[in-house]
Amino acid sequence: MSYKQVIYTTAPDPAIDPSLTTGTFRLNTVPKPTNVPADKLLVRTHYLSLDPAMRQWLTAKRSYIAPVEIGAVMRGQSIAQIITVGSDLSSTFQPGDWVVAYSGWQEYAVLGAKEVEKVVLPPGGRPTDAMSVLGMTGLTAYFGMTEVGYPKEGDTVVVSGAAGATGMVAGQIAKIKGAKRVVGLAGSREKCDFLVRELGFDAAINYKDADWRKQLKEATPEYIDVFFDNTGGEILDACLARAARDARFVICGAISQYNAAKPQGPASFMTVISQRVTMKGFIVFDYAKKYPTALQELASWLSQGKLKRKEHIVPGGIEGAPQALVDLYKGVNTGKMMVEVAPVSEALNAKL
Amino acid sequence: MSYKQVIYTTAPDPAIDPSLTTGTFRLNTVPKPTNVPADKLLVRTHYLSLDPAMRQWLTAKRSYIAPVEIGAVMRGQSIAQIITVGSDLSSTFQPGDWVVAYSGWQEYAVLGAKEVEKVVLPPGGRPTDAMSVLGMTGLTAYFGMTEVGYPKEGDTVVVSGAAGATGMVAGQIAKIKGAKRVVGLAGSREKCDFLVRELGFDAAINYKDADWRKQLKEATPEYIDVFFDNTGGEILDACLARAARDARFVICGAISQYNAAKPQGPASFMTVISQRVTMKGFIVFDYAKKYPTALQELASWLSQGKLKRKEHIVPGGIEGAPQALVDLYKGVNTGKMMVEVAPVSEALNAKL
Repeated sequence: MSYKQVIYTTAPDPAIDPSLTTGTFRLNTVPKPTNVPADKLLVRTHYLSLDPAMRQWLTAKRSYIAPVEIGAVMRGQSIAQIITVGSDLSSTFQPGDWVVAYSGWQEYAVLGAKEVEKVVLPPGGRPTDAMSVLGMTGLTAYFGMTEVGYPKEGDTVVVSGAAGATGMVAGQIAKIKGAKRVVGLAGSREKCDFLVRELGFDAAINYKDADWRKQLKEATPEYIDVFFDNTGGEILDACLARAARDARFVICGAISQYNAAKPQGPASFMTVISQRVTMKGFIVFDYAKKYPTALQELASWLSQGKLKRKEHIVPGGIEGAPQALVDLYKGVNTGKMMVEVAPVSEALNAKL
Repeated sequence: MSYKQVIYTTAPDPAIDPSLTTGTFRLNTVPKPTNVPADKLLVRTHYLSLDPAMRQWLTAKRSYIAPVEIGAVMRGQSIAQIITVGSDLSSTFQPGDWVVAYSGWQEYAVLGAKEVEKVVLPPGGRPTDAMSVLGMTGLTAYFGMTEVGYPKEGDTVVVSGAAGATGMVAGQIAKIKGAKRVVGLAGSREKCDFLVRELGFDAAINYKDADWRKQLKEATPEYIDVFFDNTGGEILDACLARAARDARFVICGAISQYNAAKPQGPASFMTVISQRVTMKGFIVFDYAKKYPTALQELASWLSQGKLKRKEHIVPGGIEGAPQALVDLYKGVNTGKMMVEVAPVSEALNAKL
């Protein structure tokens, strides 16, 4: 028996090329291990997480994480199921356990106990939640909004990339925390409708509309107290020009810039001085000690229906991951972008 | 008797034109008042303060202060002497008192009690100190460094515009507060020598050198914990690329951008995320309640010789103010830029 891996082969210059024959990645087939070492687990990948940060993982020089090495399996989280448990780990894990795994882009992986985390779900939870609203994207939204942006009652909060996995949770948390007005920026009419109708945003603006800057101005009559930024570039610039006195700008991501040969800084930078803006970058890992409390709160909001989630699952197996990553930067997804490597119906048991 | 005023006449587009016949300002002559109202003071201007923020005062739309109106006397602080005291104010002021005055650019001014502040000097103080190291520029350096940047022991601190009135105080405060390494950026070899030899900076870099980025890298082997920015533009960008984990970027000014038709944002913006940088703009006025404590500390450092000051005084009268302002943006000054409207030797008494 063998299984497939996606190998990082050629540095993007600057955009990711999804071709598996001439592009950034190659497909590789390796034999499935027959023995699992005593301190390891064999897991099967079901859903790969696709994240905007991945572009940075490929080439960033001085980042929060070392770059992926050329020739290595592409880095990534997945929802996986434990198939075989090494003898030393049998008191902690069982075949059939669902885990969030640092598996990388491969159908199977042999991992240590520290590279997996058991999925614990609240009532109404789904395994994939552990990788989105109750996983890294949910936590990123949670800490960015509550610790960096901390909207106060009466505040106007704007979220860019608002229909993405992190953005949609960030906007909903702002509302839960008492923001007066939550405005989303997204890349299509459908996404905007979804934000307002399904998630309760007060307004949503399609940044592909010719008059989006005018719409932004009209949607923020009292300026912007908190901006949760996933996109950077022109949108950050326009929001900076609308910053309220003492505004907090939560710099979570800059998806518009990751593939840019020459990144663009915010030209309205002078507003930082005149309005006393605080711009703060953050990385969710820094809040690891507070994950349990955050997950408890997120789970309770989810169970109560205060927090809604949405996934965009790309079917067809691991071969589709490079194209799905390119599509993520194009913004084709509403909600958490995942690749279905193996459907839940193929799992060892049907419990989840 | 009459006196001269400098009137703001034509909005700069984008640079200030110093010509008094065809440029941004015009000279005006008005009669000297013979009667001073009961609630007013007649003051004589001796030293005008020239400040980088002035360019912003002319055209900024949504700033911390309303723009100067076309046709009005140019706004500005000065060191002035009280000539005549209105009858209601005679218990508080006396002819001969030195004051920091919101006089604007004119040789004489009739002001209310709230538009002046009596100069109180520590041992060794000079009247002009009240407008620089013990005035707005000193306070700006103080609050920006202590409240926004707050260097810790062992930190590397970089100051741009380091030979300017605010920058040189900011760098010295960083050293007083225990920074391990203070590096200044300035625009000439002479300024750099001054920073290192006279003010005790650990290193200074002439940003006009072709290899200044390399010098910056070498001067900050442990990256930059605190950056006190007076210039913006390329220097901010290069320092962002050298930001240490959890760096604080104090956005005090952006003199390189004030006259730019199209301002430039920091392209290395992604470092804000990867290094969790906090960039914070501030305006000294927000700390007004803490001025007395700050001035006490600054005065004590000055008296003890821990804090040194330098002034660049342009002689020749008020007609020279527009050219001096242009020269300020060119960086001709080391230390606080002032125009001598009337020398101290012409004062009512010789006490100061």
